[in-house]
Amino acid sequence: MAQKQPVDYVNPFIGTTNYGTTNPGAQVPQGLMNVSPFNVMGSTLNKVDKDARWWSTPYEHNNKFLTGLAHVNLSGVGCPDMGSLLLMASSGKLNVDYHAYGSTYREEKASPGYYTALLDKYNIRLESSATARVGITRFTFPKGEHNILLNLGEGLTNETGATVRRVSDTEVEGSKLLGSFCYTNNQAVYPIYFVMRINKAPVSAGYWKFQRAGEEWENDWNKDAGKYKIFTDYRGELSGDDIGTFFTVKTDENEAVEVQLAVSFVSMENARRNLEAEQPVGGFDAIHKQAKAAWNKDLSKIEVTGGSEDERTVFYTALYHALIHPNVFQDVNGEYPAMESRQTLHTDRNRYTVFSLWDTYRNVQPLMSLLFPDRQTDMIRSMIGMYKENGWMPKWELYSRESYTMDGDPAVPVIVDAWMKGLRDYDIESVYEAFYKSATVTDSTNRIRPDNADYTKLHYVPLRDSFDNSVSHAIEYYVADWNLAQLAASLGKTADAEMFAKRAQGYKNYYSKEYGTFRPILPNGSFLTPFDPLMGANFEPNHGFHEGNAWNYSFAVPHDIPGLVKLMGGKRNFVDKLQSTFDKGFFDVTNEPDMLYPHIFSEIDGEEWRTQKLVSNILKTHFTNMPGGIPGNDDTGTMSTWALMNMMGIYPLCPGRPDYTVVTPVFDKVVIHLDPAYHDGASQVVIRKAGTGNYIKNIRIDGKLNKGFKIAHDKLIHSKEIVIETMNR
Amino acid sequence: MAQKQPVDYVNPFIGTTNYGTTNPGAQVPQGLMNVSPFNVMGSTLNKVDKDARWWSTPYEHNNKFLTGLAHVNLSGVGCPDMGSLLLMASSGKLNVDYHAYGSTYREEKASPGYYTALLDKYNIRLESSATARVGITRFTFPKGEHNILLNLGEGLTNETGATVRRVSDTEVEGSKLLGSFCYTNNQAVYPIYFVMRINKAPVSAGYWKFQRAGEEWENDWNKDAGKYKIFTDYRGELSGDDIGTFFTVKTDENEAVEVQLAVSFVSMENARRNLEAEQPVGGFDAIHKQAKAAWNKDLSKIEVTGGSEDERTVFYTALYHALIHPNVFQDVNGEYPAMESRQTLHTDRNRYTVFSLWDTYRNVQPLMSLLFPDRQTDMIRSMIGMYKENGWMPKWELYSRESYTMDGDPAVPVIVDAWMKGLRDYDIESVYEAFYKSATVTDSTNRIRPDNADYTKLHYVPLRDSFDNSVSHAIEYYVADWNLAQLAASLGKTADAEMFAKRAQGYKNYYSKEYGTFRPILPNGSFLTPFDPLMGANFEPNHGFHEGNAWNYSFAVPHDIPGLVKLMGGKRNFVDKLQSTFDKGFFDVTNEPDMLYPHIFSEIDGEEWRTQKLVSNILKTHFTNMPGGIPGNDDTGTMSTWALMNMMGIYPLCPGRPDYTVVTPVFDKVVIHLDPAYHDGASQVVIRKAGTGNYIKNIRIDGKLNKGFKIAHDKLIHSKEIVIETMNR
Repeated sequence: MAQKQPVDYVNPFIGTTNYGTTNPGAQVPQGLMNVSPFNVMGSTLNKVDKDARWWSTPYEHNNKFLTGLAHVNLSGVGCPDMGSLLLMASSGKLNVDYHAYGSTYREEKASPGYYTALLDKYNIRLESSATARVGITRFTFPKGEHNILLNLGEGLTNETGATVRRVSDTEVEGSKLLGSFCYTNNQAVYPIYFVMRINKAPVSAGYWKFQRAGEEWENDWNKDAGKYKIFTDYRGELSGDDIGTFFTVKTDENEAVEVQLAVSFVSMENARRNLEAEQPVGGFDAIHKQAKAAWNKDLSKIEVTGGSEDERTVFYTALYHALIHPNVFQDVNGEYPAMESRQTLHTDRNRYTVFSLWDTYRNVQPLMSLLFPDRQTDMIRSMIGMYKENGWMPKWELYSRESYTMDGDPAVPVIVDAWMKGLRDYDIESVYEAFYKSATVTDSTNRIRPDNADYTKLHYVPLRDSFDNSVSHAIEYYVADWNLAQLAASLGKTADAEMFAKRAQGYKNYYSKEYGTFRPILPNGSFLTPFDPLMGANFEPNHGFHEGNAWNYSFAVPHDIPGLVKLMGGKRNFVDKLQSTFDKGFFDVTNEPDMLYPHIFSEIDGEEWRTQKLVSNILKTHFTNMPGGIPGNDDTGTMSTWALMNMMGIYPLCPGRPDYTVVTPVFDKVVIHLDPAYHDGASQVVIRKAGTGNYIKNIRIDGKLNKGFKIAHDKLIHSKEIVIETMNR
Repeated sequence: MAQKQPVDYVNPFIGTTNYGTTNPGAQVPQGLMNVSPFNVMGSTLNKVDKDARWWSTPYEHNNKFLTGLAHVNLSGVGCPDMGSLLLMASSGKLNVDYHAYGSTYREEKASPGYYTALLDKYNIRLESSATARVGITRFTFPKGEHNILLNLGEGLTNETGATVRRVSDTEVEGSKLLGSFCYTNNQAVYPIYFVMRINKAPVSAGYWKFQRAGEEWENDWNKDAGKYKIFTDYRGELSGDDIGTFFTVKTDENEAVEVQLAVSFVSMENARRNLEAEQPVGGFDAIHKQAKAAWNKDLSKIEVTGGSEDERTVFYTALYHALIHPNVFQDVNGEYPAMESRQTLHTDRNRYTVFSLWDTYRNVQPLMSLLFPDRQTDMIRSMIGMYKENGWMPKWELYSRESYTMDGDPAVPVIVDAWMKGLRDYDIESVYEAFYKSATVTDSTNRIRPDNADYTKLHYVPLRDSFDNSVSHAIEYYVADWNLAQLAASLGKTADAEMFAKRAQGYKNYYSKEYGTFRPILPNGSFLTPFDPLMGANFEPNHGFHEGNAWNYSFAVPHDIPGLVKLMGGKRNFVDKLQSTFDKGFFDVTNEPDMLYPHIFSEIDGEEWRTQKLVSNILKTHFTNMPGGIPGNDDTGTMSTWALMNMMGIYPLCPGRPDYTVVTPVFDKVVIHLDPAYHDGASQVVIRKAGTGNYIKNIRIDGKLNKGFKIAHDKLIHSKEIVIETMNR
């Protein structure tokens, strides 16, 4: 047996339950297209149903009833959107109700660029793969008549409404509305365009549409009222809320029919261009092979030796999850819709989309700077493009719409971190202009920092509505402003640097000596009273804190740990308090603001072992080779990247500060392949673990003892070998 | 005051209640576009509501609540379809629910090519006019902010689903599904494409869409669930069941905004071409003037002197109604969708659509042969086109879909009648081929004559289902076959002529001596027992007869009155029996099969006075200058044409027999302008009434006494003056 490649270690089912919200769909790295099984509607056999609760992923591993393959999906998000263009197959008499045509399934398998299952009801095998913008599904049928169904009425998205048109006997095209992600901005809608082709002439084809129920007198005449109407001879545009299109094919035993589904966010013509450029001749096996090779190439950027099979699986699956979003957006001809205006623009580089920046600034984007600086640079250029198109940097951008989800000004730490790490091939003046704008505009046009009138004056945000997120907002502004100060200084803008650095200290206003945590401040300047620092667990609404309690935010000041230590009564008190968050269960492994808590110990001489211990425990407890192996939403790779980098032995505590906290690597040897074009000619660095202890004794860089438990980025990339000598305690 | 022109006599409100189903909408003669007030939904102020009963017209004169102007409508039909693209204006805060934005109205007026009303709720004046394919509406506003609304979710049609897209700040385009006319053929659907422009830049604009109601948990988050959602910044395709688009404009007092709405049945591009060719610069008054002039020109084909003001109004309104359908179909570039396949074809002539042939073969098409032989010829060419495109002549064709509404093979009498009157500039070989096909094919592909297996064998159609229309079908086949026999003879196909003539005698099978009426025959050859010849009144389902009772059909044998007289026991018995249908109230003035009953008396020497008396009474009683002035559905002008021709003094009893029954004219003088190119150089014929009696004493043609009470078509058109001397009895 050939040696296992990185791609062979990926288990796409990790994160597909326990709210990980990843999916086992087929796609290529940073691909727009993802073809995921859709099993969250239509049957009580399912444990969860998308319509019975808030549900944000097309696939739940413990569900049983498949109603199709969703095309273009989000991975690891907490809000429903996308997850539409549901392709399914059935046998025998046409029934277009998904409750009826859905099926349980078995023999399910997934690997990078590949998903398969066998539909129990029909004995139809389905297999999916993808190129960047085009999905391909191969149905292998028993002998008989079968239906290939494309449901345009359902999906995860909150929007409805689609149009479809038969282009030829074997091709349809259309569009469907998506958007209103998280319901935060109900105007943030956008159309997806598609072209679907099958490679076998059907014996019949048509559309369906759910007809509105008429009055009783009307139902007597109109047999279609209140039912799905089937259109068999009409080939023009069919539009509606609940529509679909079908092809009926006649097959021999084990005959395969391939279905290609291409998308574009610009036009149906571009969807067709994407199809013809990426999959001109179809051929499932070749496309699968190509997708697998693309994954193996990207995953091989890091080669690991040692660790258990499960650890290597967790590791490569984490890297796999980190390389899903942001994904390419432009069509093969370079066209994409401009931010918000959706005017068609053209690019010669990759334009990226799906920027969940409040999550990813913490580690995904820093990882990209290290492993794929070319992509990171294009991602930054994409963000600059959004600013130029729309006047503001992105916050939570989704297919050129701003959803304004989560808090702060997260574009700042993303770009400043890359800038500080030497990635500088983009228009930094525009970047600074954009950052200065969102940092200083105080009127209602500033939807990035909606509290800026208060914040610029007070350097904190008072609680103006009972359940607002004022403290969470400010916490993010501090990180952003500290980053902005670094950039201003780097650009020689000394006065700005001072101003922003000063604002970044505003966190101190929130510290309540009485409770030892941050505490909301009322508009009159006094603390919120009464106050419960534990309020806000399990997503219950809370005053001032977003999706968390006071404990989850009170240490989230990575840019000024010394200041925080002092504020909290000195080193001993600080360490005890921080340790107590773990001991008392106040630490929430599923949430971003406190994901850096374990690493904060490494900022304090002599306490680094706590980091090593906590990280090791968290990895072991929460990141496993199981469907539930990600603790909560993967947050477009952020949770996975937390595991990934900690398993490598280096974790970025503070974005904008170009260094890594060193933790005990899981593997004996980690080879990081660098891009010499971006890394001053450096092409590789090796991290080697000496010994089998859980704690770090010392760190040697190219033979020389490293001072402390941090490594500067610049030092890292110019090292040949970093040896981490371990010990037990 | 200038002398009144024909156009000044038209009262478009005639037929707008009492089930006349005409509408007062603005249009040009034979125009595709009709802009009609839509007042049949949204309020209990309305006497009838389209959703509370079977309802087939956008406008009911006794209703009060206007919800818009419907674009492209059917006139005088009994089934709901079209009546969509509902344009409305409102003031102040946007509300897109038609229950809320609808308004009562006053100062309503209509004339050919013009409709106006004042909306009570907003004091907005609306005025509509049209060119052949483009409607134009001028809203005159008070000072303030107003909304121009286009509702794509509602309409008369049974279909739903539309798409709209904002092209620019002042233009939208889209499509909407129509069809399933009468529910008889649920596959007969088709899209209408539109482009709408306003001539003032709006202060805001957008779409609306009714969002499906979510589960309770979802409604907490999504404020749009179960409500109309407003999209203000999205400009891409919006598709759905219940959608619309709006422009908000800011106006001064009495400021007018013009809205042009162009349609095409080929594409949005063609709708735009139609707009730019027909109304390049807008200008309501000029377009209205042009529409009025077009009507006056067409209506002036017949000039009348004498009669009362009301009679002239009834007369010209009848002619107006006769010139609505069939209407032009092709776009300005000559493109139209082929019958059934909807492939785009091109024509250099007018392609007509909306052929309600079971109705119009009786008089509308014969009238066209007399007054507009060029149009009649193009209508015949259009029918031949349908045969070539789809393999069958039309029956009830609607925008290139066959609805298979009503009975028989009515294309035959339409074309044969024109042929016998000398209109022969079309491909008669194809016509004969088509007619021979529908007359002889006996399998299920023959949906024109679905009973042909029985009929060709037995020369009648037995009752095979309790409530089938077997006798009504056969009655129509006899008329068609007699016509076909005439054509075959004219083409020298003697054997065919004999065969069809023999079949046309099959009506005799149905005669029941016991009841003195036609009576359904069972498959075993015996009459249906028990039998009630009066069953079937008021649209109650009946055995063998469609929308009528046995009496309504038993004299419907225009091609063989002598045979029928003999069958019914000789002249005396026949006259008494026919007279009794009137005396006992068995005659239904609202239905087609017996609309010739009064004229049958003129086939019998000495009984012509009965025709004259009955026609005069029916005209006086049922055709009046009032909204209820048409008895029942106008049937795309058929009822109106009955009145029109009888008022002129000539009525075509039997299609295919090129003559007219002479009745007492209502007017002192009727000048018919002929088309010399089609009428052997004849350009005019005058019918003059001498005396004031209700009965005809004699008829002189160019001074020469006419034998009997009929005039051959050929003789008519070559006469200079026909003097009808009247008397009293």
